[in-house]
Amino acid sequence: MHSTDDRHHARTVEAHRDAVRELLAGLSGPGRTELLPLLAALGRGLAGDIPAPVDLPPFANSQMDGFAVRSSDISDGGTLLAVVAPIPAGATAAALEPGTAAPIMTGAMMPPGADAVVPIEKAVPDSFPDPGTAATVRLPATQPGTYVRNAGSDIRTGELALAGGSFLGPGQLGLLAALGITQVKVHRRLKVLLATTGDEVVEPGNPLEPGKIYDSNGTLLEAAMSQAGVDVLRAAISTDNPDALTAMLREHAPQVDLIVTTGGVSKGAYEVVRQAAAGQDVEFLHVAMQPGGPQGIGRFDGVPFVGFPGNPVSCLVSFEMFLRPALSSLFGAPAPRPAIRARLAEPVESPGGKHQLRRGTLLPDGRVRLEGGAGSHLVHALASSNALVHVPVGTSALAAGAEVEVWTL
Amino acid sequence: MHSTDDRHHARTVEAHRDAVRELLAGLSGPGRTELLPLLAALGRGLAGDIPAPVDLPPFANSQMDGFAVRSSDISDGGTLLAVVAPIPAGATAAALEPGTAAPIMTGAMMPPGADAVVPIEKAVPDSFPDPGTAATVRLPATQPGTYVRNAGSDIRTGELALAGGSFLGPGQLGLLAALGITQVKVHRRLKVLLATTGDEVVEPGNPLEPGKIYDSNGTLLEAAMSQAGVDVLRAAISTDNPDALTAMLREHAPQVDLIVTTGGVSKGAYEVVRQAAAGQDVEFLHVAMQPGGPQGIGRFDGVPFVGFPGNPVSCLVSFEMFLRPALSSLFGAPAPRPAIRARLAEPVESPGGKHQLRRGTLLPDGRVRLEGGAGSHLVHALASSNALVHVPVGTSALAAGAEVEVWTL
Repeated sequence: MHSTDDRHHARTVEAHRDAVRELLAGLSGPGRTELLPLLAALGRGLAGDIPAPVDLPPFANSQMDGFAVRSSDISDGGTLLAVVAPIPAGATAAALEPGTAAPIMTGAMMPPGADAVVPIEKAVPDSFPDPGTAATVRLPATQPGTYVRNAGSDIRTGELALAGGSFLGPGQLGLLAALGITQVKVHRRLKVLLATTGDEVVEPGNPLEPGKIYDSNGTLLEAAMSQAGVDVLRAAISTDNPDALTAMLREHAPQVDLIVTTGGVSKGAYEVVRQAAAGQDVEFLHVAMQPGGPQGIGRFDGVPFVGFPGNPVSCLVSFEMFLRPALSSLFGAPAPRPAIRARLAEPVESPGGKHQLRRGTLLPDGRVRLEGGAGSHLVHALASSNALVHVPVGTSALAAGAEVEVWTL
Repeated sequence: MHSTDDRHHARTVEAHRDAVRELLAGLSGPGRTELLPLLAALGRGLAGDIPAPVDLPPFANSQMDGFAVRSSDISDGGTLLAVVAPIPAGATAAALEPGTAAPIMTGAMMPPGADAVVPIEKAVPDSFPDPGTAATVRLPATQPGTYVRNAGSDIRTGELALAGGSFLGPGQLGLLAALGITQVKVHRRLKVLLATTGDEVVEPGNPLEPGKIYDSNGTLLEAAMSQAGVDVLRAAISTDNPDALTAMLREHAPQVDLIVTTGGVSKGAYEVVRQAAAGQDVEFLHVAMQPGGPQGIGRFDGVPFVGFPGNPVSCLVSFEMFLRPALSSLFGAPAPRPAIRARLAEPVESPGGKHQLRRGTLLPDGRVRLEGGAGSHLVHALASSNALVHVPVGTSALAAGAEVEVWTL
């Protein structure tokens, strides 16, 4: 389906991913960070390691509502102990005298001397006496440490809480709050110029003349990049006039960290991005991937540049396979796609010399159903999918039930 | 570990999820929608079906750079055809005369009369002649329909493009743009009052006295709810004084759609949320789930109310298991967690009578490794995880290699 030299000289997916990462590596310097309050840092990548400034938990505390005891006070058949003043959560606990039991609430500090908690439902009687009244309780024998959360058992002071490059989601921000941290140094958002091209491409909302299509790539990629934590500058749709595209790129390049174009990168007769990048340090090549094979990469007026192909599915696949992993790896955000395994609900064929990406839906039983065919123009099928299905190089057919790698979108 | 009546009367996870959904169902009326430009609608849920206003593709077009032909013109051994004017993308194509071949670019309109495309690399010569020069080309026999994308082959005018309740991510917005749609009706964001409680809980940034811990729940849940498309109003941390909490909830209730509290819902002696909700239509119960068993649900001054337990992991699990699915189901956002299957990297034990949720990391080989133990206070272990691991009711042990359901966080 592609010319012979393309097939023979195609770059691997991994090599092109490395090349895109290398292209952007200069954008992750120490001057490109900012200090943000925790919630403003949601979805950003951490710049630099954070060691724990305190133990978590900060002090030994009870895991249950019950009685704090000295376990050595209780014999095998159970022992009657005098009930002392209760310890609510948040209070400082006085030392526990031998032969006594202190009512203790979940999360409350263990009194010095106590080494275990007996849950209230194992006590006789199984309720707390009114504070201030003299009372006893019979408790069963208990191993030291039972239902006690020791200080530092989650993390100790000085241990690595979060490594530089960590993605900051709810769990990570929750940990920082638990450590008493209020601000965090993160990588700045990248500014990206997004330019879609094509004489056939019309801005949605305008009339659709014969031979024209609405621009889907701009919306698709701006949405995907926004989700990934990138600031997108949208240029007007470029026609297939290379001089106009060159002028537009030249105008915006100084304001952005990266230029992304769509369309005009293959070997046809009217490849506007190739023509506009003539004389620039930009290479056009073929990656052994379907869809999304034709790619451009380099620098335009010194600004990092990647050129994606013109079909919507090719654009999304290019972003997911090359740009998104580079952002995750260099800037800690977005979170990398976990490698999920699922069984194919149906057989699939693939060009053995290429890494094929199909769109699919993860089913509740752990299988993945393909949506639409391999065509890179099938944007309705894409919108019906929640996953990318990988068929690696060297595989030309897989049976129903075969296990594949899947990325959720 | 819990009192006998709790265990005997525990509600199933499914029943409580349905109850939370039912509680919020009144918030999804037709007056609670808004019309937004596509990119402002990213991450929102679609209110109402959208039928396709046009065909996609809008017209038959070429899938390759090559020659548009009448397939019946070419005999089995190949045929020499006269080359006519090329058809670039975006142009209106004139009818193709019998015995001729038109150079055509990917995405360009098929000329009337043509029914197939021969890719350029199968032509002899395998390059396009200069436009305007008389030329011939030898092309091999080709099946009708080859490399033609027919009008409406992705979606036809009037067919359902997106169903009401769809989550609007990049793919869905890309489809709407391809259809020429510029604005979309979505569900309004919910306003949620988030109130964390506890005498032991201190706002991060303040000194940590003995017996106190920093508030992690507020940051964790505000971040999780923000990701899920909810507007969060954070109340100051409430002490364990029920009158103060009642007054605070009463002050804010009229401004919000939902109240969420953390802590103070179990059976201890100092359960501030239970006490503050006395006299309100709020039920406190136990769900057969670990962690996150104790739950409150009902209405406070008529406003929907859910009370989560006080440990951070319990809070996140409560949100993921009950509130997040209700939001997805009623308002189309956030996107539901796909049910992923993974193999355990290690054995796990579970209380057979409860649905256990553990934290874990999905490994590149498709296995899931558990992070930390079952303890609901382990926020460092949570921050090291990218997945929730489900061990369903009725399962008390699973071997390494057993398949489990996993939700990526």
